[in-house]
Amino acid sequence: MDGNPKIVVVGAGAFGTALAAVAAAKEKADVTLLSRREEVAAECRRTGRNEAVLPGIELPAGLAFSADTAVLMDADIVLFAMPSQEQRAAAQSYGASIRTDATIVTCAKGMEQSTGRLLTDVLDEELPGHTIGVLSGPGFAADIAKGLPTAMVVAAADGDVAAELAGILSGPTFRLYPSADRIGVQLGGALKNVLAIACGIVEGAGLGDSARAALISRGLAEMSRFIAAKGGEGDTVRGLSGLGDLVLTATSHQSRNLRFGIALGRNGRSDGQGGELVEGAFAASVAARVAKDLGVDMPITEAVAAIIEGKLDVRTALEQLMSRPITQE
Amino acid sequence: MDGNPKIVVVGAGAFGTALAAVAAAKEKADVTLLSRREEVAAECRRTGRNEAVLPGIELPAGLAFSADTAVLMDADIVLFAMPSQEQRAAAQSYGASIRTDATIVTCAKGMEQSTGRLLTDVLDEELPGHTIGVLSGPGFAADIAKGLPTAMVVAAADGDVAAELAGILSGPTFRLYPSADRIGVQLGGALKNVLAIACGIVEGAGLGDSARAALISRGLAEMSRFIAAKGGEGDTVRGLSGLGDLVLTATSHQSRNLRFGIALGRNGRSDGQGGELVEGAFAASVAARVAKDLGVDMPITEAVAAIIEGKLDVRTALEQLMSRPITQE
Repeated sequence: MDGNPKIVVVGAGAFGTALAAVAAAKEKADVTLLSRREEVAAECRRTGRNEAVLPGIELPAGLAFSADTAVLMDADIVLFAMPSQEQRAAAQSYGASIRTDATIVTCAKGMEQSTGRLLTDVLDEELPGHTIGVLSGPGFAADIAKGLPTAMVVAAADGDVAAELAGILSGPTFRLYPSADRIGVQLGGALKNVLAIACGIVEGAGLGDSARAALISRGLAEMSRFIAAKGGEGDTVRGLSGLGDLVLTATSHQSRNLRFGIALGRNGRSDGQGGELVEGAFAASVAARVAKDLGVDMPITEAVAAIIEGKLDVRTALEQLMSRPITQE
Repeated sequence: MDGNPKIVVVGAGAFGTALAAVAAAKEKADVTLLSRREEVAAECRRTGRNEAVLPGIELPAGLAFSADTAVLMDADIVLFAMPSQEQRAAAQSYGASIRTDATIVTCAKGMEQSTGRLLTDVLDEELPGHTIGVLSGPGFAADIAKGLPTAMVVAAADGDVAAELAGILSGPTFRLYPSADRIGVQLGGALKNVLAIACGIVEGAGLGDSARAALISRGLAEMSRFIAAKGGEGDTVRGLSGLGDLVLTATSHQSRNLRFGIALGRNGRSDGQGGELVEGAFAASVAARVAKDLGVDMPITEAVAAIIEGKLDVRTALEQLMSRPITQE
């Protein structure tokens, strides 16, 4: 990847378009945004914008748009920017077009619903021989694309690869910090959604800002225990990909997980039917189950999972949380 | 302190009244709120409220009110709930009335302006022979007094004393976690005000939620380095008294520090005249100076101090922060 690596971003949603835009804004950059539909690529090419997902934002002149998977053949770095649940299918359909020496970076947050697996594990399985990285942390697509200051994390099993990716993908207002902890970085992104639901419940139930602050603080401690038990670094959760992303999600009403929690808190209980569940609802039940298997104490996650499943009402859950024995801070 | 310790809370402001209220709500509690003026004590006694500072909140029937320092003679635990800058004078004027075997807990956040000292150091100096603890963390007085769920920290040099205090002062909705790190707990409370100003600057300058999330995350890392250099535990900052309190301060517009920062961010620079400075403004310049002496890298604190002192405008500060070399997350 000396000199001028060719980058292809797969997935022309808001986040993929934003990542492609910052990468393409750099001098001598060679970046292509690959969408599934030719109409999308043609419209972006014609207008210099991706109006449907990033309204009003001008994209850099140097950014190329395509719907032809042949562009993957030349790519040195491929960013997978489609939703979590589509990553395995994308790997299956695009895999044959990607050179084996290309590095693939998953840019979704979450776990595969059917298996409970981390996305890097899914891609390791589907694309053996490739170096698989992950990009996560606190960054709204619109903030990134507008050039507002944003800091995120890129992780790879090899820290030197992570540092190289960080250098290539960072721009003047978009800073990527390298990490060698793929597990911790991904679990931070997935589990913060559970805590965002919990923060929503507290807000919806009218329990006050102090309660929310306590929840975030105690919640991070249990995320850290879970990550360590899953083989990651417990400290990773205290950085951008855990705490940073949690602060963004739990305090911004742009978050669907937070709004889902607020509705639960207002109603006092779930009907247990599920309905349209948000990412964090699934993560809560997976994490609660895995935590039990691993013997990790996660009272907040367990309470969120039980509330969503309709097994516990909000008031009882709160009483249980508040009557736990006090341990060392 | 077996059985039924006598508690006196000195300072009938919002926070002192709230602490007295939760302590007095417990069975067999013996709690007196000591104010400087007899009119305040009489009015609280007459109405069962402290309407001036906690409007509309009924105080427990068992809570006693006094303006007579003689009540200190019987106290086993004395909470110092007056503002930071009044703690030394309070120690000097009340010290002679307090039994030497009584435990004193400072409940203010901040450092002494004239000396830059921690409040526990001030009290150690003025009240030698006493056990001095500190209570800090994320808790708005109104939330505490209303019985909304709140979790804070009480620290003493001896962890067993901290645990005992936590047990005595906690109530069903007010949970105190014990800590043996007085330095870390206090610096968390003081330095989070600096970061709240920084968050305000980011908000006032219109830099977006992603930037604020990154700032909080990176800011905690530098608070942690400072605490470790001052002899505290770097990890304390990741708990309720650091992160938890920071989240509360930096995301709630009730905070004067946050509002001060927002005004700075909107103006783009400070006039350097100071005007009415908030607690965090003083903490920023003290911390920046001490960090320099100790050789601790605190780019965010240094930038906040320089902006407040009128030595740097917001835009230049931001450019400097964003162009720092990227290190490991």
